[in-house]
Amino acid sequence: MAPPLTALVDSLPATVPFVGPEAQERARGRGFSVRLGANESVFGPSPHALRAMAEAAADAWQYGDPECHDLRTALADHLCVGPENVLVGEGIDGILGNLVRMLIAPGDRVVTSAGAYPTFNYHVVGFCGVLEMVPYRDDHEDPEALLTRAAETGARLIYLANPDNPMGTFHGPEVITDMLNRLPEGCLLALDEAYGEFAHRLPPLQADDPRVLRLRTFSKGYGLAGARVGYAIGAPELIDAFNRVRNHFGVGRISQAGALAALQDQRYIRAVVDEVTRGRERIVQIAADQGLTAVPSAANFVALDCGHDGGYARAVMQALRARDCFVRMPFVAPQDRCIRVTVGKPADLEFFGLQLPLALDAASEASG
Amino acid sequence: MAPPLTALVDSLPATVPFVGPEAQERARGRGFSVRLGANESVFGPSPHALRAMAEAAADAWQYGDPECHDLRTALADHLCVGPENVLVGEGIDGILGNLVRMLIAPGDRVVTSAGAYPTFNYHVVGFCGVLEMVPYRDDHEDPEALLTRAAETGARLIYLANPDNPMGTFHGPEVITDMLNRLPEGCLLALDEAYGEFAHRLPPLQADDPRVLRLRTFSKGYGLAGARVGYAIGAPELIDAFNRVRNHFGVGRISQAGALAALQDQRYIRAVVDEVTRGRERIVQIAADQGLTAVPSAANFVALDCGHDGGYARAVMQALRARDCFVRMPFVAPQDRCIRVTVGKPADLEFFGLQLPLALDAASEASG
Repeated sequence: MAPPLTALVDSLPATVPFVGPEAQERARGRGFSVRLGANESVFGPSPHALRAMAEAAADAWQYGDPECHDLRTALADHLCVGPENVLVGEGIDGILGNLVRMLIAPGDRVVTSAGAYPTFNYHVVGFCGVLEMVPYRDDHEDPEALLTRAAETGARLIYLANPDNPMGTFHGPEVITDMLNRLPEGCLLALDEAYGEFAHRLPPLQADDPRVLRLRTFSKGYGLAGARVGYAIGAPELIDAFNRVRNHFGVGRISQAGALAALQDQRYIRAVVDEVTRGRERIVQIAADQGLTAVPSAANFVALDCGHDGGYARAVMQALRARDCFVRMPFVAPQDRCIRVTVGKPADLEFFGLQLPLALDAASEASG
Repeated sequence: MAPPLTALVDSLPATVPFVGPEAQERARGRGFSVRLGANESVFGPSPHALRAMAEAAADAWQYGDPECHDLRTALADHLCVGPENVLVGEGIDGILGNLVRMLIAPGDRVVTSAGAYPTFNYHVVGFCGVLEMVPYRDDHEDPEALLTRAAETGARLIYLANPDNPMGTFHGPEVITDMLNRLPEGCLLALDEAYGEFAHRLPPLQADDPRVLRLRTFSKGYGLAGARVGYAIGAPELIDAFNRVRNHFGVGRISQAGALAALQDQRYIRAVVDEVTRGRERIVQIAADQGLTAVPSAANFVALDCGHDGGYARAVMQALRARDCFVRMPFVAPQDRCIRVTVGKPADLEFFGLQLPLALDAASEASG
């Protein structure tokens, strides 16, 4: 007989936070023409990163440095903080999992927005934390509501993505700073800045502030989603505590080398950010041509308001997928009137622009 | 003020299972000439794997397939089991962490050998499991003692590495099969076969047997330690339960591609195994020339008995490191009379052979 799972793990649902596009392609029996659903950077990483990874591949027989020393030091220099303020980990997903493990005992409260990042929720549920969800307000995550609910429930952790995913909306530095100043005692703000490169005004780094952990990644602006490298910036005591639970050799050698080279090519990132800005404008225009409104975005994707309910938006998404456009709809009501479209290369967006009116027709027919 | 850690995590020691050679090189202020301390494969991965990783790097802007479908299917075919019997994860380390999380509640007993894999112990301690350690017997892990202690303590998990690390000793299939048949009810055997490619007679795969999870890796024979890909073979219910806790996007795109290509080049692996066999023989000879005995090894490393106590062996190890040979000594008494030397290329081993007598002299002087 199989040994039983712990009561805690036995109680967990079998969840998959996201079905990957590859699984969808296997189910469809054919590939997508454009991959605009996972907020990846179609512009790819810096050529320097590609070269660094090819070189590192020859040394892939060696474990990566478990201290990620070179990358950690370079990040600290780049951010003007100390290396003791920086943790490198297996993507923001991996870091969030360890953060929840460190702070949340069964029954502890965690506040997030209904419709925010499902992988964070997956980790909270996975350690039997109790999710407290507040609604979006005007398509933005709502700092007031997050703070109020945290105070009411004695929450240990608030999650806020800024820019937000999936809406793309953004709060200026003054909003975040104010929120930090009003954080309930004993509560940490997990500030997910995965899309930070695309936002031009992030709050200043007070790296020793023990009330906030800022989470960033090489998966978005740096174009290295497939390398799995994220990092966190925070107070030394919290950063150091990750050493008690993290998978010390978890960030591979090729990944460390690629991330380091990508970081060192800031000119490339600026060019990507410019491309993304132009791409967002193009998506807004394509949507406007069909009478759709785009939610203003500070990220590398745009939430397009399809103007009806969730059923209609889902039909639009499915019709786009049927026409080989991979897009997603990771929303809850009332944000589920939207579909989410990642910025692509110009040719990708032209293809999307051709398919969108056909998809809207198909959705109207289906719901009419 | 910082939010408090959970009582569980707060109670954990700040442990580092292994200090990487890079950290030692930084402390020394210079690199090692030969890297024979981490049981990596100096022969590197198959050229096909290098090519596959270089190609995949261009797609590194895309997340890896969270289902690892192609690799998982190829592993299943190679092993003649079903894909539902195979889990791909972030190295054996990552899989062990999740396995402990799934099976061990605070206070649950876990049996291992005193001096066996410290990273496994790190995970057990990290989930507040209680480690029960039994001694080695004749430099082998002792199945009888492991079984007896498990029965006495109602353990939920036994860890056994076969071939063993750090001793390199091996139990034949009949010993493991017998052990499985006598496993206490409700206890799982975590059978770490990281070095399985170097052992010629592994027990037959009974993949649906719910009493055992077999752990294998691309880090050793396949020469991809820096890519972080391990896999587990077990009963479908247990494999599936990992979906409740694993980091779904944790295995990167380049890593999946490299591992798949490495798996498909079995001719290369056979050549590596032959090189390793010759290298082991060379290490045994080098040791014998200095009057040292080698523990018979079925892995890609050899434990060399330095003939005295732990202090002496430590002095030998340190003298070797001072002479730019990175070797390790991850033993507890009485196995700590040994140093552990990974098979290197012929030139690496000649360098080691030149340094060993000098290191022995230095150690004798230090302890004399």
